[in-house]
Amino acid sequence: VFIVRFLPSRKIAHLHSSASILEAAREAGVGIESTCGGKHKCGKCKVVVKSDPQSLSPPDEIEQKILGPSLLQRGYRLACMARVSKDTSVFVPRESRSAAQVILTSARDLPSPNSLRSPLKAYDIEVPPPTLSSPIADRERLLNLMASEYRLPHLATDPHVVRKIPFALRQNEGKVAVMVRKGQEIIGISEKKYSTAWGVAVDLGSTTIVAYLVDLFGANIVATKSTMNPQIPYGDDVISRISFCQQEAHGLQKLHKAAISAINGLIAEACEAADIMPEHIMEVAVVGNTAMHHFFLGVDPRFVSLAPYAPCLSSAQAYKASELGIKISNSGYVYLPPIKAGFVGSDSIACVLSTGLYRSRTNSLLIDIGTNGEIVLGNRDRMICCSTAAGPAFEGGHVKWGMRAASGAIEQVRIDPKTLDVTLSTIHGQQPIGICGSGLISAVAELIRTGCISHRGSFNKDLNTNRLRKGQRGMEFVLSWKEENPTGHDIVITQKDIAELQMAKGAIRAGISILMESLGSDIKRIYLAGAGGNYIDPSDAQTIGLIPSPPGCRIIGCGNAAGHGACLALIDLKSRRHAEKIANKMEYVELAGSARFQDLFFSHMFFEPPH
Amino acid sequence: VFIVRFLPSRKIAHLHSSASILEAAREAGVGIESTCGGKHKCGKCKVVVKSDPQSLSPPDEIEQKILGPSLLQRGYRLACMARVSKDTSVFVPRESRSAAQVILTSARDLPSPNSLRSPLKAYDIEVPPPTLSSPIADRERLLNLMASEYRLPHLATDPHVVRKIPFALRQNEGKVAVMVRKGQEIIGISEKKYSTAWGVAVDLGSTTIVAYLVDLFGANIVATKSTMNPQIPYGDDVISRISFCQQEAHGLQKLHKAAISAINGLIAEACEAADIMPEHIMEVAVVGNTAMHHFFLGVDPRFVSLAPYAPCLSSAQAYKASELGIKISNSGYVYLPPIKAGFVGSDSIACVLSTGLYRSRTNSLLIDIGTNGEIVLGNRDRMICCSTAAGPAFEGGHVKWGMRAASGAIEQVRIDPKTLDVTLSTIHGQQPIGICGSGLISAVAELIRTGCISHRGSFNKDLNTNRLRKGQRGMEFVLSWKEENPTGHDIVITQKDIAELQMAKGAIRAGISILMESLGSDIKRIYLAGAGGNYIDPSDAQTIGLIPSPPGCRIIGCGNAAGHGACLALIDLKSRRHAEKIANKMEYVELAGSARFQDLFFSHMFFEPPH
Repeated sequence: VFIVRFLPSRKIAHLHSSASILEAAREAGVGIESTCGGKHKCGKCKVVVKSDPQSLSPPDEIEQKILGPSLLQRGYRLACMARVSKDTSVFVPRESRSAAQVILTSARDLPSPNSLRSPLKAYDIEVPPPTLSSPIADRERLLNLMASEYRLPHLATDPHVVRKIPFALRQNEGKVAVMVRKGQEIIGISEKKYSTAWGVAVDLGSTTIVAYLVDLFGANIVATKSTMNPQIPYGDDVISRISFCQQEAHGLQKLHKAAISAINGLIAEACEAADIMPEHIMEVAVVGNTAMHHFFLGVDPRFVSLAPYAPCLSSAQAYKASELGIKISNSGYVYLPPIKAGFVGSDSIACVLSTGLYRSRTNSLLIDIGTNGEIVLGNRDRMICCSTAAGPAFEGGHVKWGMRAASGAIEQVRIDPKTLDVTLSTIHGQQPIGICGSGLISAVAELIRTGCISHRGSFNKDLNTNRLRKGQRGMEFVLSWKEENPTGHDIVITQKDIAELQMAKGAIRAGISILMESLGSDIKRIYLAGAGGNYIDPSDAQTIGLIPSPPGCRIIGCGNAAGHGACLALIDLKSRRHAEKIANKMEYVELAGSARFQDLFFSHMFFEPPH
Repeated sequence: VFIVRFLPSRKIAHLHSSASILEAAREAGVGIESTCGGKHKCGKCKVVVKSDPQSLSPPDEIEQKILGPSLLQRGYRLACMARVSKDTSVFVPRESRSAAQVILTSARDLPSPNSLRSPLKAYDIEVPPPTLSSPIADRERLLNLMASEYRLPHLATDPHVVRKIPFALRQNEGKVAVMVRKGQEIIGISEKKYSTAWGVAVDLGSTTIVAYLVDLFGANIVATKSTMNPQIPYGDDVISRISFCQQEAHGLQKLHKAAISAINGLIAEACEAADIMPEHIMEVAVVGNTAMHHFFLGVDPRFVSLAPYAPCLSSAQAYKASELGIKISNSGYVYLPPIKAGFVGSDSIACVLSTGLYRSRTNSLLIDIGTNGEIVLGNRDRMICCSTAAGPAFEGGHVKWGMRAASGAIEQVRIDPKTLDVTLSTIHGQQPIGICGSGLISAVAELIRTGCISHRGSFNKDLNTNRLRKGQRGMEFVLSWKEENPTGHDIVITQKDIAELQMAKGAIRAGISILMESLGSDIKRIYLAGAGGNYIDPSDAQTIGLIPSPPGCRIIGCGNAAGHGACLALIDLKSRRHAEKIANKMEYVELAGSARFQDLFFSHMFFEPPH
């Protein structure tokens, strides 16, 4: 058994065989950034050996190339490549720690309960006792009453409910309350009246998971809890997690269980905050992108990443929570709204539901910006959608100083047009340690506005400022001098970073253009959804040409629209029907292999000439 | 921690607190007879202390009275009363060991598969691949095909099947076999064709459990496995098990788990015999009396034993096997035929199904003889049933030398009318160690025929034989001298034993009479069902007046009719429908509190005068 100690946290992994530092970190629960998912590509998982360098396998050519001689000399190693051969201690530098992302949890208020059709209804009833001349069974007397008095024939009951019936009926002379799901099944029986039915809506994002505890009868969110997705150590984005589950024995099980236990943890936290028991929760609704949806169900999503990108299942599902290991009432259910395609998941459907795009007369555009940009354009008559592989730039990946939207991330940049002095805003106002997606967009927008870069994206070398300089691999612009931040380095934007953003925004904008060519360019509303979308400054987004600027169009950051849509699906059967209709009706445009998309992608990689 | 060692088996129990020897025996898996279920009444659980007598609590007045001074002096103790206070060794004498009952497993042949409607059907299909222009999800392409080609729309799928679909579809260019249950759900998918669907029918008796492994498509029983019910240590009959589960913490759980694990064991054995895996089994059908049915489902049957004896549930049920812990295919189901009443279970319904009573033009009488005698009389137009508490005499309880139908039990007695010499037949031809139910009936019938007892049941004291003598508590007749058997005692029938049989047969015959008064006495067939019934000599039964003797009536020992009926319910949806109709249609007559039944009971306690 080897022991690996992680500094500064002092967490420890016990290894039974040789493993990489990254694997040991997963074991110990230490978050190390690994945008490429341990594939020896991103170079984000740098750690420093603090014990005998011989305790790790020597760096091979690839690792030497990624790190360079100077870092190697200072004891730096890539956690994904260095394998443990003895007890060792490693230090995880600040920039390699996977920071807690700022999680967008705010969902809009829910509609009035009067306008909803709840999947759960409570009935207060009085079941007559059995008699010697008619010793009808307990369950059958109860069911007969529900059929005759409430026109609910053939109600199902699972063993858990059946086991409770005889005692409940004898507690209070046959007076009981029953909870009926969708007019089809008794999922609860109690000698006390039900004050409400409790439910949980879950937005299962690749990066963050948010759970809303909802009082279904009052249509109130009573607690909101969120966490980083514990699948992150297995790969930052869904593609690397899919490869993880292809390559690792029990990889799928690990990802499935990570999602389930994280959700169980959030449910327990939310229940504690509201002073109820998880057993009181009767229904859960979960939305996520297709890969997360599949991981949640324990379904291997590997074929989603291969042409023609078909999901394993797409229609709405309802399973007993216990079948999936979700810890709520034994008889409770998990509902999953439908997904549309391999890269348009139920989170997108939930956004369409939440924004009301599906019932608007005029065209609306909905963009969920992330590694994959899901785009929906439409109105109540027609909706079309597509998904573009934007790459990780919007989440800080492939960007020299990129990071997630966590404390200390630069989220807004202002450059004085005359002096080219820089003013930064960071998340939580802390000293800057990197740049998140909205910060990158903001910086590039300012560089465009101040003429520092051309519409093709290249730096204007004639500028008279020491911020613009030649770096190791081409030109770079200094946002923060090393004296102004705790990293010990200048924080810069490189020519390559700008190119990454150009590709990301080109892909999304090309997707938008494809949809507009099909449905028209008269757009009255643009919804920016998801954590990324919500924090992006609309004018920055228009400056870099990420989104179009149709006349008279409102741009709306719509918060956690997926979470809000999950809440609607949780509490309202009509919303479930709408979600199912949206999935059926919405047309999916596959961009992979489209020559037109390629053309548009290349032309949208450039910025529009400044006004 | 105390250690209790059981001789001669040398099994050991480790106790963490003081417990009775009987509890220790349950812990160690040592079978000790306990007809009263540990209630200090039956005196069957005698053991002999082999270590320091001080290692057990001293015998109290009740124990002293039951054992008597002679046994006490020889170190005998009642296992249910003696509590362990130190390490100890006890010897379990042969007569106290719960012997393995001879289990009646033979079920008649099943009908031709052509006449059946199987709940499971296999389809060999070819699912088209997804395309870029129509990347429909795997599950949805499969379901669309089943809807369009086989008119099976809206098929359900559980997560286990969903997880297999993507791989199965890609194994052999979309060629797969699917197993569909009741036209409603895909419960299996395979890249190989299904040669058959495997199922298991279970007769869950209070004393014995029999499992039949059935090839559903061929309608063949391919293996039969049986075991003693492991619930026996918790009480010999259902009433003592019900009290156990009222009095013991987790008593219900213990009984539930004992039944489930015994069935899982039988399934595993049967699969081994047939060289298949338990995962290949797709459907299980279980029949049993109402208490066993409830225990199987984990439902507390305590109210079944209280007036008005209403069951907790009665209609037919189907649950996922995994919900009940039954280890077959993850997606397989357990079907339970309906029960009729608190003391007319699905085993009786299965017997009606098996005998075909429900479709005969003429009246048939069906009697399942046990602690409770379930009786059905009827024809295809009308059926009535009742249940009588016969007491344990037919299973050897409350009878001085009574025992279950195990090796060494006297099962037939012949008495020479002149010499009054006795000839015994025992089970497996071994030396006699006790008398089972059919042996008691046989002995009493012979005593009647030879004039040894009067029609009121009392011994004729004027007989000139040393076999008839005055014992400790009244007259007794010696069946086997102590020189002729290994017990070291004379095996006798006492006046009290005869009285027990009179009460038992009086109860059953009174039940029969009640039904005949309602439906007529013209009976063409009498079916004797269950292990007890099958081994009873029909003429002995008529001699003691257990069953009537209508003219032109055939008496048929119908083997394990409940097991055969369970097989029918397993393989045939029409039989399930019949079972459900039988349960609805059959009228139940409650005998508790019936004055007419009391009258008949007393008059039928006497024997009919010899012809």
